[in-house]
Formats: sequence, structure tokens, C-alpha cells
Amino acid sequence: MKLYDYGPAPSPRRVRVFLAEKGIAVPTVQVDLRAGEQFGAAFRAINPDCTVPVLELDNGRRITDAIGICRYFEVVQPEPRLMGTSAEEQAEVESWQRWAERDGFYAVMEAFRNWARGLKDHAIPGPDAYPQIPALAERGRARVERFFARLDARLAESEFLAGPRYSIADITALVSIGFAAWIKLAPPETLGHLARWSAAVNARPSAAA
Amino acid sequence: MKLYDYGPAPSPRRVRVFLAEKGIAVPTVQVDLRAGEQFGAAFRAINPDCTVPVLELDNGRRITDAIGICRYFEVVQPEPRLMGTSAEEQAEVESWQRWAERDGFYAVMEAFRNWARGLKDHAIPGPDAYPQIPALAERGRARVERFFARLDARLAESEFLAGPRYSIADITALVSIGFAAWIKLAPPETLGHLARWSAAVNARPSAAA
Repeated sequence: MKLYDYGPAPSPRRVRVFLAEKGIAVPTVQVDLRAGEQFGAAFRAINPDCTVPVLELDNGRRITDAIGICRYFEVVQPEPRLMGTSAEEQAEVESWQRWAERDGFYAVMEAFRNWARGLKDHAIPGPDAYPQIPALAERGRARVERFFARLDARLAESEFLAGPRYSIADITALVSIGFAAWIKLAPPETLGHLARWSAAVNARPSAAA
Repeated sequence: MKLYDYGPAPSPRRVRVFLAEKGIAVPTVQVDLRAGEQFGAAFRAINPDCTVPVLELDNGRRITDAIGICRYFEVVQPEPRLMGTSAEEQAEVESWQRWAERDGFYAVMEAFRNWARGLKDHAIPGPDAYPQIPALAERGRARVERFFARLDARLAESEFLAGPRYSIADITALVSIGFAAWIKLAPPETLGHLARWSAAVNARPSAAA
């Protein structure tokens, strides 16, 4: 088994933090996204979508979606649970993970990819050319500010994002905030609940992954 | 238990088809999105995000995300499995569901919400004002055409989207294609694998939900 990865990139980091929380070690292969290695013939043969992470199983099959990879490990090694246990808890985790991804991760990506000089025709990840739309870069930033405010409001009523236990929803939020530094945005210090949560999740050894 | 729903809308339809496949009946409450009922004080008290579907449990708690709701029912009543069984299968279903949502459902939504006359400041679902971006309407259409082509390519090698069994990934794809009619797009008849799959999934009684 191996994980195609790129150290600085936020998408594979979601998987790395997840694996660190489970205490699972998987050998990684670095794909240099900054050098465009994902668009080369060798990597296209591994994932025609030209994205990382990719998990290659021992039977040769590949999972090319970050959350799909996390789901694989959650089933293979359920403890510690990162996707909830009871039906209600699993639904809650799923909902908050999706919220953090949509309003956080994708909002940062929208702002970053429609602004970065090196991504002119890569406003959407993958092999297809999509030109940047400057209005989207601006909208993305506004969305990220709202994401910070809502995250703080949610954390005023809950220890972790999806309830009393750390979950994959926290991982998505944590990685999204790290990603926001790429567009030079950070949660305002006045958001005290977010600050309390941020200190807690970043103190976990998994945050270094 | 009750499901806040709106008959013509694609998001709650995902849940309705899922429930029909499981043979689960849940009483529904219609929220008239066309009349703007989701923005009224009464519904805001139920879901501040102003979206349907919302599942209200007997203990009063609410799940406000379509896939979160499906996850709830998958755990409560596992059979028939719509999210996979083995680790590999669950990862596969998760990955294809997410692909169909991102490249299909969200692409149609991008095209529709940035174009429809009645949605001027509602380019993103929810209570926040986001003005339409005409370039996004155009980009959305291009993405939907690519979605059709890739879906056909995938269905050339697989009976259903995530493998040999019908799953929630098929539901997302099916609902996305229905939603595409709102922007007057339909898969070209030349895509034979897609046509074969489409006939099969639409022949299931759940498609009427």
C-alpha cells in the first residue's frame, strides 16, 4: 500500500492528519505539484484527474478522493472513531465535515486558484483548462471571512465541530485554516471560541502531519 | 420524525430517492422555496441555513445536510446497502458520490444560480447575498457537458457508477441529470453507456420519488 502525497498541499494533509490520529503509517510517494508532475504522463497513468492524494492498495486498486481514502481507513481500523459511532453521530460528523469543506476548504480554494499567478488556466483542479475569474477570488475571500465567524459561533456551543469528540470535521476545518494562510487570511483574534478550539486541535501530535 | 422537503427541488430529491430505495416512509412538510418560505422567520428557526432537506428526529435534533440525512438512515437501516459494504466498496461509493456531486450537481447549480432571473443575489444557497457572476453560468454549462462525457466513459467499464451495485453515487448522478434540465442541458444521445444506465436507474420505482 502507498499514498501519493505532496507535503505542502492541503488536500493530502487531510489524509495525513487522519492517519496520524489513527496511528496508521503508510509509505508515501511525493508528487511535486509545484513542478507540475501531476500533469506528466507517469502520474496521469496513476490518476487521470491529476490530483493527490491517491491511495494505492496492495491489489493495485486506487482511491483518488481524500474523504474516500479516510472512509477506507475508518472501516479497516474503526478506532479511534473519526466519523462518529451512532447513527446520529455519524450524520452529525458527515454534515459538519461537508459544511467545513464547502464553506471553508472550497472557499479558500476558490480564492486561491482564481488569484495565484501560477494557476492562470487552472481555476479548478484537474487536467481541464478553466481560466481564472477575478470576481471569484474576491467572493472566495468574503466566504472565508464568513466561515471563520460561523466556525466561532458553532464552537461557542460545542467543544469540537461535530460535538464532544474530535472528528474528521475538525480535520477539514483545521486544514482549511492552514490553507487560508495561502491567501493571507487568518481568523481574527476576537473570535475566542475559535481560538480555544484552534489551540486544542493544533496541540495534538496529528497537527504536525 | 419528519422531513422538510420541497417537491420540485433537486437537493431533497436525493433523500427521497434514497428513502424509496430503502423502503422507508417519512412524513414530509413542504417548504415552498419558490415563494421564499425558506427565508421566513418560521423556517429560519428550523434551519438558519435556509435550505432543505432537513430531517427532524423524534428527540428534536435536526440534520440539515442531504448526505448527512442519508448516512443516518444507512446506519439505522443498513439494508439494502446504498453506501457500500466492505472498506473498498465504501471508499469507492464515497469517491464516486463526491465526484458526481462536485462535477455534476454543483456544476449544474453553478450554471443555474448564476443565470436564473429570480436568483439575482442568491448565487449560493443560503441566507447570505452573493451576486450572480455571468462567467460562472457559462463555466457551469461547460462543466456539465464534461460531466456527461465522463459519466459515459465510466459507465462503459462499470454497470453502476460505483461498481456492480446501485448506490448513492447513482442517486447523485441521476438527480444531477434531472437538475440539468433546468438549464436546458441533457446528455447527448450518442453517449450510449450513459443512455443504458439512465434507462436502468429511471426504471426503478425510486426514480419517481
